[in-house]
Amino acid sequence: MPSRRYVYQGRILNLAIEDGFEIVEHDHAVAILAERNGKLLFVRQHRPAVGGSTLELPAGLIHPGETPQEAALRELAEEAQLSGELEFLNSFYVSPGFCDEKVFLFRASNLQPAQGTPDPDEEISVEWHDPKEVYRAAQAGKEQISAPAMAGILYYLLETTHSSL
Amino acid sequence: MPSRRYVYQGRILNLAIEDGFEIVEHDHAVAILAERNGKLLFVRQHRPAVGGSTLELPAGLIHPGETPQEAALRELAEEAQLSGELEFLNSFYVSPGFCDEKVFLFRASNLQPAQGTPDPDEEISVEWHDPKEVYRAAQAGKEQISAPAMAGILYYLLETTHSSL
Repeated sequence: MPSRRYVYQGRILNLAIEDGFEIVEHDHAVAILAERNGKLLFVRQHRPAVGGSTLELPAGLIHPGETPQEAALRELAEEAQLSGELEFLNSFYVSPGFCDEKVFLFRASNLQPAQGTPDPDEEISVEWHDPKEVYRAAQAGKEQISAPAMAGILYYLLETTHSSL
Repeated sequence: MPSRRYVYQGRILNLAIEDGFEIVEHDHAVAILAERNGKLLFVRQHRPAVGGSTLELPAGLIHPGETPQEAALRELAEEAQLSGELEFLNSFYVSPGFCDEKVFLFRASNLQPAQGTPDPDEEISVEWHDPKEVYRAAQAGKEQISAPAMAGILYYLLETTHSSL
């Protein structure tokens, strides 16, 4: 077992060196794909890391003691004031070359209003968009989207062509 | 302009604090979707950050002075000893809540043999897999895949159902 030397231990991430590799430890996360009348649910927010605003799926970190499913329900309520039935779609590592963050992607259906408020350090705008329009805007560099948003858009388009996975 | 205080400046990433946010600065990257006889090109490698092996698309960081297209051609040669015609598909931020890494995803066609050797610190196995099998293996937790692999699998399945984007 190689030893991991910590350079920084912080609020949402740790930075360590192991065998010369720079490694960021980061909690796992969830993202939720939700649709209404052919439009997908996105949140737009300013992201200091990126230096601009992004269009993302509702998403967030899994809190200690939560299952991915519980985290997804909480984030959907906090960010979009919605609830629904969740189906687990898949999971992936966001950037396994340096980071252990894994995202669990869910599909929400039978959407209903729910109580919830965003984190105080997040200013979020909830937006419903045609998935092909967002795909093309990202392709043209007019929108900046997240990895779960890309996966969600492609999954939804695949689902609506009735191909089985 | 908020000030960014650096905690660590390293080989492939920097860690900074800005307005209380922990931010990882990381080079942009490329990933390449390539297909042969209905199977997609994957690379399997041990990833210290993840503590295990992943199945990913050929991918890597954009070197200084390179265009994303040039980086994609170089990575495809280095990791899979292949060349091809590249089409830009789209780009996305891997985890914009804390990191500025953006991935440019390309589709390679008309594949041909090319000269190239992997980085000495990478032990890579080149594998061709049915995209639905990899999707289902990831869903079942039997394979760990990357965000570009997830996007590439979904894009390819969408493409082969002949839906237009």
